[in-house]
Amino acid sequence: MDGHYMRRCVELARKAAGHTSPNPMVGWVVVRDGRVVGEGFHPKAGQPHAEVFALRDAGDLAENATAYVSLEPCNHYGRTPPCTEALISAKVKDVVVGMTDPNPIVASKGIERLKSAGIDVRLCLEEESACRKLNEAYIHRMLTGKAFATLRTTLSMNGVVVNQIGSKADQPEGYYSQLLKEYDGVIISSNFAKTTTLPISREAGAKQPLYIIIAQGEDSQLNIPFLKEEHASEAVVITDSPITVEPAGVEVLALDRMSLESILQLLAQRGLCSVLVDFREAGGGIASLLNNFQEEKQVQKVVVELLPVWTVSKGPSDLAFGGNQSFPLKDVEHKEVNGCVLLEGYV
Amino acid sequence: MDGHYMRRCVELARKAAGHTSPNPMVGWVVVRDGRVVGEGFHPKAGQPHAEVFALRDAGDLAENATAYVSLEPCNHYGRTPPCTEALISAKVKDVVVGMTDPNPIVASKGIERLKSAGIDVRLCLEEESACRKLNEAYIHRMLTGKAFATLRTTLSMNGVVVNQIGSKADQPEGYYSQLLKEYDGVIISSNFAKTTTLPISREAGAKQPLYIIIAQGEDSQLNIPFLKEEHASEAVVITDSPITVEPAGVEVLALDRMSLESILQLLAQRGLCSVLVDFREAGGGIASLLNNFQEEKQVQKVVVELLPVWTVSKGPSDLAFGGNQSFPLKDVEHKEVNGCVLLEGYV
Repeated sequence: MDGHYMRRCVELARKAAGHTSPNPMVGWVVVRDGRVVGEGFHPKAGQPHAEVFALRDAGDLAENATAYVSLEPCNHYGRTPPCTEALISAKVKDVVVGMTDPNPIVASKGIERLKSAGIDVRLCLEEESACRKLNEAYIHRMLTGKAFATLRTTLSMNGVVVNQIGSKADQPEGYYSQLLKEYDGVIISSNFAKTTTLPISREAGAKQPLYIIIAQGEDSQLNIPFLKEEHASEAVVITDSPITVEPAGVEVLALDRMSLESILQLLAQRGLCSVLVDFREAGGGIASLLNNFQEEKQVQKVVVELLPVWTVSKGPSDLAFGGNQSFPLKDVEHKEVNGCVLLEGYV
Repeated sequence: MDGHYMRRCVELARKAAGHTSPNPMVGWVVVRDGRVVGEGFHPKAGQPHAEVFALRDAGDLAENATAYVSLEPCNHYGRTPPCTEALISAKVKDVVVGMTDPNPIVASKGIERLKSAGIDVRLCLEEESACRKLNEAYIHRMLTGKAFATLRTTLSMNGVVVNQIGSKADQPEGYYSQLLKEYDGVIISSNFAKTTTLPISREAGAKQPLYIIIAQGEDSQLNIPFLKEEHASEAVVITDSPITVEPAGVEVLALDRMSLESILQLLAQRGLCSVLVDFREAGGGIASLLNNFQEEKQVQKVVVELLPVWTVSKGPSDLAFGGNQSFPLKDVEHKEVNGCVLLEGYV
């Protein structure tokens, strides 16, 4: 039954997708005598950790209960007291953990503290990969100091990068609307931001991602309609050269050398765990950030949407040929979404 | 039950895939008292039509039986006598037809002849689309005077046309090995033929496709290793300029103006119903045949294989961007084959 309750922990944790960074998503289930007596998840950074809600939900029934948690409970004082102490006070009998703390320096400290207080602790190996996937961005940031980057693109059936995205993808329940809800930020070029409506999530109650606008080289005048409106606080501009006309109220971050790696480091420092790279424009935009092997390796995941269209080429030079240097993508999955084929894979 | 027997007709007909052009694939099932008493299919152009085998198989039991056939029986003398007369002689009671003759000039002539001889004839609407798909190439050639062209390509996940094909695709039961078995010919450029091993089907008993080698412009010396071997009769060269060194034994066809449309007309005149266009090389090869809307519309079907790799681009110009002019692909299907994702669609 461990797997069953752990899957419920993951399900609960995901309710807060997009809201928890720089914290992880965490879900708890408290079970006594084969019955769920408490549930909780971490709703938002700065708010209490998940176990507070679950133990409050369980009340006195937490005593002698089994607590399930998708991530090893913390054992340090941050903005909230350590989760381990709450479990000890509540006198739970045993704790089942989905994965250990990804930070190698603190890993297993929480488990050791519980054990030293006489609480049995075991790992739920069956759902460890699901727990890792849940917090893949959090783990990546913790281990590398960079934000987890997912590149999203739409191709025609003959491999041409097209500007439009597929049928209903940006409508409620569309895959792109859902990605935008779950990611902390979306990277777009200033050229794109000037000419195109910024992507937004249409999911009910979605927090919109931070818009990370890349202004490169001579692009010193940020005439971006969006930034002039009430949305200035929802964007940050990253630039490698002086900006003569700074939009009022917009945070501008300077980089000596523009690279995807330095951008992702900057964003991790700013507390973002995950960013989407919206890749739908020709040279000079985001594409120029991805122009060598080293840079491309900064991307952790790709989401490729295939439109059921054939794009007319103006000549052979419009088609990209190559294939000598490539790296494999792992765990590629595909499914049909509203008449388009959606593929996901990991670098 | 009509659908059941008609699906068996299609199954029988497909046994001869790759062997029947310029004839269609046709399968017959003879049923009496709810029992299959005869089966047959057209094995190869020049050999008897399918009904001969099925009626011979049924013997005297054909009398008062119901005959199922995937394509309207012919009513004219060609290399063999008309199928209609064989059915009338065998005294079948009724005939169920999968689709009428695609040639509008002779359509329904066979059905009329049977009816005039007192035989009941009905269409099996349930399987009409399966019967049409079975002979999509034959129908296309009949209606347009051009060979049915299927473009095959392999893309990386970021849309780059790669030279290699996916894991095991050209091994037995691989999708490409199967395509090569079923198509009458495969179009490749002379550059490709000079440097690469020609694609062959590895299916048991497969007839190999005719190699259609396109020599364009200044390519007057056909130093193709393959043509110097014993395979000269398996290839045809199409060229738009004089060839100074003609390979011995190889048929050379001249075109005033090289275009995919004129190539497909030439191939249809030569008796080919279906050709694969193997699209895996940069400008100067097959790609240059497909450089405008008009030419791309000559292709009826596309088969796109997605390799689970990310191809490293040397710069943004290596990636193809576009999307203003495109046409939809219909009936797009996708499936996983040996770790690659295979998509098929119709123009």
